Amino acid sequence: MTAVPSMSDTRSGSFLELCRAALGPTHVLTEAHDKSPYLTDWRRRYSGDALAVLLPSTTEEVAAVVRACHAHRIAIVPQGGNTSLCGGATPVSGRASVVLSLKRLNRIRDIDPLNNTITVEAGVILQQLQQAASEHDRLFPLSLAAEGSCTIGGNLSTNAGGTAVLRYGNARELCLGLEVVTPHGEVWDGLRGLRKDNTGYDLRDLFIGAEGTLGIITAAVMKLYPAPRARVTALAAVQSPRAALSLLSLAQQYAGPALTGFELMSALCLTLVTRHFPQLRYPFAAPYPQAVLLELSDSESEAHGRATFEAMMEAAFEAGIVADAVVAESVQQSRALWNLREHIPLAQVEEGKNIKHDIAVPISRVADFIEATDARLQQAFPGCRMVTFGHLGDGNLHYNVSPPEGVDHDAFLANQDAVNRIVHDSVHRFGGSISAEHGLGQLKREENRRYKSDVELGMMRAIKTALDPQALMNPGKVV
Amino acid sequence: MTAVPSMSDTRSGSFLELCRAALGPTHVLTEAHDKSPYLTDWRRRYSGDALAVLLPSTTEEVAAVVRACHAHRIAIVPQGGNTSLCGGATPVSGRASVVLSLKRLNRIRDIDPLNNTITVEAGVILQQLQQAASEHDRLFPLSLAAEGSCTIGGNLSTNAGGTAVLRYGNARELCLGLEVVTPHGEVWDGLRGLRKDNTGYDLRDLFIGAEGTLGIITAAVMKLYPAPRARVTALAAVQSPRAALSLLSLAQQYAGPALTGFELMSALCLTLVTRHFPQLRYPFAAPYPQAVLLELSDSESEAHGRATFEAMMEAAFEAGIVADAVVAESVQQSRALWNLREHIPLAQVEEGKNIKHDIAVPISRVADFIEATDARLQQAFPGCRMVTFGHLGDGNLHYNVSPPEGVDHDAFLANQDAVNRIVHDSVHRFGGSISAEHGLGQLKREENRRYKSDVELGMMRAIKTALDPQALMNPGKVV
Repeated sequence: MTAVPSMSDTRSGSFLELCRAALGPTHVLTEAHDKSPYLTDWRRRYSGDALAVLLPSTTEEVAAVVRACHAHRIAIVPQGGNTSLCGGATPVSGRASVVLSLKRLNRIRDIDPLNNTITVEAGVILQQLQQAASEHDRLFPLSLAAEGSCTIGGNLSTNAGGTAVLRYGNARELCLGLEVVTPHGEVWDGLRGLRKDNTGYDLRDLFIGAEGTLGIITAAVMKLYPAPRARVTALAAVQSPRAALSLLSLAQQYAGPALTGFELMSALCLTLVTRHFPQLRYPFAAPYPQAVLLELSDSESEAHGRATFEAMMEAAFEAGIVADAVVAESVQQSRALWNLREHIPLAQVEEGKNIKHDIAVPISRVADFIEATDARLQQAFPGCRMVTFGHLGDGNLHYNVSPPEGVDHDAFLANQDAVNRIVHDSVHRFGGSISAEHGLGQLKREENRRYKSDVELGMMRAIKTALDPQALMNPGKVV
Repeated sequence: MTAVPSMSDTRSGSFLELCRAALGPTHVLTEAHDKSPYLTDWRRRYSGDALAVLLPSTTEEVAAVVRACHAHRIAIVPQGGNTSLCGGATPVSGRASVVLSLKRLNRIRDIDPLNNTITVEAGVILQQLQQAASEHDRLFPLSLAAEGSCTIGGNLSTNAGGTAVLRYGNARELCLGLEVVTPHGEVWDGLRGLRKDNTGYDLRDLFIGAEGTLGIITAAVMKLYPAPRARVTALAAVQSPRAALSLLSLAQQYAGPALTGFELMSALCLTLVTRHFPQLRYPFAAPYPQAVLLELSDSESEAHGRATFEAMMEAAFEAGIVADAVVAESVQQSRALWNLREHIPLAQVEEGKNIKHDIAVPISRVADFIEATDARLQQAFPGCRMVTFGHLGDGNLHYNVSPPEGVDHDAFLANQDAVNRIVHDSVHRFGGSISAEHGLGQLKREENRRYKSDVELGMMRAIKTALDPQALMNPGKVV
């Protein structure tokens, strides 16, 4: 084990000089008030310290400061839009480190509509990427709540999911090539825009989802799709998660790949939304236990999309799967339905703290999972309220536990570890994942070790050591 | 460097005893005539020797013999259907090794139509997997020429491509989870059937495409899709690869994800097919420089698919992109059009040897690539004939060079290295891949080193050493 410098190490002076020489003095932040926005995560759960916040604007500048870090054994915390929900981009204590922000690496390098690809730097905001695609009559399908501030580099490092995974896959499936600065400060140019390439190990997918622990993604070639002619949205009321699963099968049979969204929302979710955002309207005359938001992306026309929905819903009524349904007849009506879904996280904030889980199980087991886990939680915490919603089409639930009516939220949060144990043990029994789309970061690193096999953890550690022998990259995260 | 045993090493006796104890004596082949089918590749280009051919029938048996190999430092050559086009499953000389055939590991462990997944062992033949899916009204989309004899383990180890990649991706994109026996003889159970899982490094995609050099894939969870209601095929005559690319854009705009096949065939390809298979008919009244086979998979009906094709072709005629077109009006007519495409490799065999390349470039650059590379080849080898065909929708061409009319095929093949240099240098200039869907194996290992950067090769070697420190797994391939 080599000695690792602490924050007070005197060599940091010459290290910062190297950084200033590489980036210019204004892009090496060392004053507390300048560094502060980079040192605390979005949800204000984690804080750390750093010798400096580095703001390179080119890949070569990234490589230069990484070489300086390598020479001085300074740890590196890569950061994009600082929207991690797991403290993945916040320094941990006890290690001399820098935050390396990619936000000035924000150029769209190339767009190739005929190849359906766009080459972007890591700091490009997701929404900017969506807009650039749209200007060329193309779709970049990755879409999630933080899209106005998260970066594509962060999306790739955490293999972000969101609402269009059912059809288009996660960030991983949308990426064809990467440019990466290695922990040694070398540049790997893997910016290939190819649909087929079998010339060696899949390094691309190793860096995707590694949360900055193996190297720094500086640019990527992302896939684009022809923009669909129309998007049509519907909301269906169903009696149970099991009925929602039957609707999913039926919808896939009727719409095939045109089905691009399938979101489950429990009654409590929509109650909270309409309680805290009374301008949003629950569209059914009676309350139902569950609602499903469906989206079709039609290559033909809006009328064709609506006709597909109508045929599908008719079959669903006849089969007794659906209790009620509305198909949006305008963009405004579609927006109104999506608003219900998108306001669930905001309504939770208004309602008070709860204990959140971002989990996935095989789609076929979602209903059994909910039933079994709800029962265990009720047994341990009678009256606790389930705010269960999410991407049912991907088997991915945001399975959040609120205190019983009238119970103090902070007092209930003291049960977080016990609640996590019940939920994650259940996820494990159902062959699921304790982190479906948010990554591990600091939040779930220890928890992950509980459920992963020694064989898998051993291979992860071997790869970490092989690519980052000095353990410089984002310490305290993932492995 | 530790000493590596040679074929004559006396310790092989006790090693074979361990294998016989693990598998039973009849599943350890040591007689030359028993081993022989496993020691030469499909195309009879490569031959090697092995102490034994091992035929385990369970994952535990695989692990047991790998542990024996590990203890005795015997190299392991995993083999599926022995259909590699690159010598990837044939032993190299100079190293004591065994062939480990997965063909008895051929159970379908589970099929979950609601989760749209199937769990299969490595030795399941691709066609059996397709059939099992079909029996549950599901589609397993991977499809390629060798599907009657290749195995899913080999498909995954080489990240196989084929004719449906345009819509469904390569073998990689069709896999959700793996079971792997590591080079230490441990079993990694990564058989997760999840659409979202961000709990650590992507080991799955590291083993996929590694051609058995990092471990042995013993089972996999593969994605299924709802079976489309109808498949409709069309053949379009175009004047140039550039026009074919324009047709691709237009087809994607009209059909979106329903466009599942887009295959280019040069005039010479179809001339050879009709010359050697006169029962197959070229469907156009006049010869055209290029033809494109298109396939739509429609979730609605055959009539709807044909209507989409008709609208598309009408627009293509009006835009001057297409010179002539036929839309198949029956399954028989569809079959006849696909027969033209599928008989190209067979017609080449009849015509005599040629120099083959399995390359990919960005789709937008295919026409420029063909033009520039054809010109260079004509300059170097005047009169050489280009048998160019393949998966244009993926930028993947089988770019094969036949001798000029009347020139002896074997004499022309003496130019193979010079031809490869011209073609691969050109691929490299166009940002392409010298192995799109066949892998590297023995055939392209050296060639790959010429074009990969030192940074990339260095990371590949670091990973190889980290996971297989004794270099037991499939030596002489990939790295």
